[in-house]
Amino acid sequence: MLQYMYFSEPPRGLVQEKMTENAAFSQNKVLTIDTMNPNVKKMEYAVRGPIVQRAMQIEKELREGVKKPFTEVIKANIGDAHAMGQQPITFFRQVLALCSYPELLNDNMFPEDAKSRARRILQACGGNSLGAYSASQGIDCVRQDVARYIERRDGGVPCDPDNVYLTTGASNGIVTMLQLLVCGEGASKTGVMISIPQYPLYSAALAELGAVQVNYYLNEDKCWSMDLSELERSLAEARKHCNPKALCVINPGNPTGQVQSRQCIEDVIRFAAKEHLFLMADEVYQDNVYAEGCQFHSFKKVLFELGPQYSNTVELASFHSTSKCYMGECGFRGGYMEVINMDPEVKAQLTKLVSIRLCAPVPGQALMDLVVNSPQPGEPSYTTFMKERTATLSLLAEKAKLTEEILNTVPGITCNPVQGAMYSFPNISLPQKAIKEAKALGQVPDMFYCMKMLEETGICLVPGSGFGQKDGTYHFRMTILPPTDKLKILLAKVKEFHLRFTQQYS
Amino acid sequence: MLQYMYFSEPPRGLVQEKMTENAAFSQNKVLTIDTMNPNVKKMEYAVRGPIVQRAMQIEKELREGVKKPFTEVIKANIGDAHAMGQQPITFFRQVLALCSYPELLNDNMFPEDAKSRARRILQACGGNSLGAYSASQGIDCVRQDVARYIERRDGGVPCDPDNVYLTTGASNGIVTMLQLLVCGEGASKTGVMISIPQYPLYSAALAELGAVQVNYYLNEDKCWSMDLSELERSLAEARKHCNPKALCVINPGNPTGQVQSRQCIEDVIRFAAKEHLFLMADEVYQDNVYAEGCQFHSFKKVLFELGPQYSNTVELASFHSTSKCYMGECGFRGGYMEVINMDPEVKAQLTKLVSIRLCAPVPGQALMDLVVNSPQPGEPSYTTFMKERTATLSLLAEKAKLTEEILNTVPGITCNPVQGAMYSFPNISLPQKAIKEAKALGQVPDMFYCMKMLEETGICLVPGSGFGQKDGTYHFRMTILPPTDKLKILLAKVKEFHLRFTQQYS
Repeated sequence: MLQYMYFSEPPRGLVQEKMTENAAFSQNKVLTIDTMNPNVKKMEYAVRGPIVQRAMQIEKELREGVKKPFTEVIKANIGDAHAMGQQPITFFRQVLALCSYPELLNDNMFPEDAKSRARRILQACGGNSLGAYSASQGIDCVRQDVARYIERRDGGVPCDPDNVYLTTGASNGIVTMLQLLVCGEGASKTGVMISIPQYPLYSAALAELGAVQVNYYLNEDKCWSMDLSELERSLAEARKHCNPKALCVINPGNPTGQVQSRQCIEDVIRFAAKEHLFLMADEVYQDNVYAEGCQFHSFKKVLFELGPQYSNTVELASFHSTSKCYMGECGFRGGYMEVINMDPEVKAQLTKLVSIRLCAPVPGQALMDLVVNSPQPGEPSYTTFMKERTATLSLLAEKAKLTEEILNTVPGITCNPVQGAMYSFPNISLPQKAIKEAKALGQVPDMFYCMKMLEETGICLVPGSGFGQKDGTYHFRMTILPPTDKLKILLAKVKEFHLRFTQQYS
Repeated sequence: MLQYMYFSEPPRGLVQEKMTENAAFSQNKVLTIDTMNPNVKKMEYAVRGPIVQRAMQIEKELREGVKKPFTEVIKANIGDAHAMGQQPITFFRQVLALCSYPELLNDNMFPEDAKSRARRILQACGGNSLGAYSASQGIDCVRQDVARYIERRDGGVPCDPDNVYLTTGASNGIVTMLQLLVCGEGASKTGVMISIPQYPLYSAALAELGAVQVNYYLNEDKCWSMDLSELERSLAEARKHCNPKALCVINPGNPTGQVQSRQCIEDVIRFAAKEHLFLMADEVYQDNVYAEGCQFHSFKKVLFELGPQYSNTVELASFHSTSKCYMGECGFRGGYMEVINMDPEVKAQLTKLVSIRLCAPVPGQALMDLVVNSPQPGEPSYTTFMKERTATLSLLAEKAKLTEEILNTVPGITCNPVQGAMYSFPNISLPQKAIKEAKALGQVPDMFYCMKMLEETGICLVPGSGFGQKDGTYHFRMTILPPTDKLKILLAKVKEFHLRFTQQYS
């Protein structure tokens, strides 16, 4: 009864709580693992999961002088370009500095186009300050610039700025859309179709919202393409126990690095129309296309090219971000979503929902503006901007190829071409003995493999199980972002480790 | 059957939907007002609600040359200091510019302390860039600075940086904490006690999470103080139909502008301990204290001063932000929360939850750092910083007094002293005839009043019903932020309108 000693009488709530099983373990706290939101407990996010926490511990141990078979941890677990040494685009940062401290507009060190962009953004801000709230949907002129960007990108397909919402990174837009979609209980609970492998934001958000995750598998043998028959199988299966309402696609793919063909996108749109599904297109890697013959096609563009029977009916939300492509500005949490064919009453609800969070971070909105309204031919910053952009994208293309090639030289590792995005997701053969040992330890086999690699080499990858994979197959996700020299060392170490691991457990 | 004409067969999902009542109204969209998340529909946020939307329309009409009895809309609906002309703190913006474009570190125009702060922040960022993700919980050195700030503020009460989470404004921290707390169904559903009047983020978040809102009323007759007997009444009532787990306090108060006494805070903490409630202290206005004899006491400090029987047991989360006080940097969405006595397993879940959103905006984290680590005596920017800070806070104090005084000269308006925060929340007497007319129009009476004021004067206030109030009482919330000249005009217009309105309906 120690825990009651400070109270004249046992508080009522506490007495009730005592009745439940595990309360005593937590010294009668109000909020315990047993009394907390069960949906939160179900959420998983491998990209920042246990392996990353261990990596951070190891880094600390290294700093404290603990001896390891390596001198640094190489983090290839997350698409964090600047952390891996990629340089920001000069023009973007000049404008952000000008917007942050407008006194600099009087300085001669900045090019005129940077100043005029800054002036335009500031004029659109309350009190001409990045420190004012923007309208809930985002700064008007930024949404107009986004709309014009989408129109240019999609060969003139019209875009209404009123359909554009500025978001806190793409993640925030995706979660908001899922939140609108989810309702019902039991067999009428909302189901959302997501690719497997998937980016774990989706599974986590669905767990959070208590929705049903409906898996469809990408075809690894056909470079992670989407098969119509698999979509049909998955949907038919799901309809037995829930109400599937939405289909999510990530293109270019995360973690799988494929770029979907125009034909595939057409098929998916037709499928969504036929099956009455809301489409969500995660297109944050739209500039990250490397493989010859591959091209980015936005769902919006293909939807409109399929004609009015589709473009007037299929509901689509597409997402973009400042975090990827050639800018890699993750820390600013900038992004937008465009909604097409959304019911006007629902749109009003969406606007209300985002208004409660007040607004997306205004510096991120400003950055999003620069991405969609970058320097144009004839402007003073154009040449430097293009040089920087091209250099970054070429380097990524080179590293994508390098990664694929080296990984495919390793017996027991098979890697699809990294056509786009920022990751390879190779298939790894694990010896039966390793699988057994992992299971004995209560670990998923590819987690066991990645954890061992981290301890032995300092390389931090994410196990395939964190993204989902076909039963009995194993993978890891590795970013292609480290500088070329370091990437080569990393790949050599992965090779060496894989051979050693295979031998050890054979 | 027009809606089916493009399909060879009616899609299965559609046929099901047809069975439900209202599907036909929405041209068979997947996502309609009837199929969307019902919790989202229940959310309300008056601060950006219908009256603000109408204000934006009126602004547009004015730009288009529509004749009105006024020439501009004065927005006194939201605590958006920069939009109302408040100037940012020079030092903060210098450091942000340096962090955005580190080339400027070579420039002689910036003081050394600004440069050293910028270098320190950049060194703590991945790749020395604001564009890298931070750790999920926030940048390490910023959390350390926050901890030291809290220790100084609270007279040496220790703060562990590990208990500090950097957030996307305070709103994000509050919603995250509520999300952790909510579970159960029916009579065991989580209840959360909130003050009435309240800041509508709370009611909206509780609706979103499907939790039970438990109202306790502030005592308007005692300058919006918290009465223990009212807390007891509210809790006893709530326990009949839900499981009240948390108690939220906003101090200094929003929308009510009171500053709670030390005694009151002690009482609340004792009450929370006795009744086994998790405490949430929204302290974003901690520097906004104007009234003589009033002082800000943090819940954390009082908790520790009450001795170990409280400081070792009571669970507390407190929230702060870059948006209010003397900085008013709402657009950056910076903030932190500190959690005390949180169960370690729950804390691990909290860290996982925030990791899924990747991280709070890094520019906002940098700004939070500057707020908690501002220029010190002897540093080159100290004098200017203190001058700017003091000027802003003195001006706010002056405007708080002015608002209270002028409003109290109006027959039918009674205004408590604006002791702190940024708002007055006067009580308004509405004639019976006006109440009847409002009801006939299906409007809440104070919404009717505020809407009429907007149409006739261009002044945008928020009706008290948006925050909650005792039945049969009416209020509005008005910010004290407009520049003094404009504030005087605004108050004169409010007076004039109120007299006219009262006469018209008498």
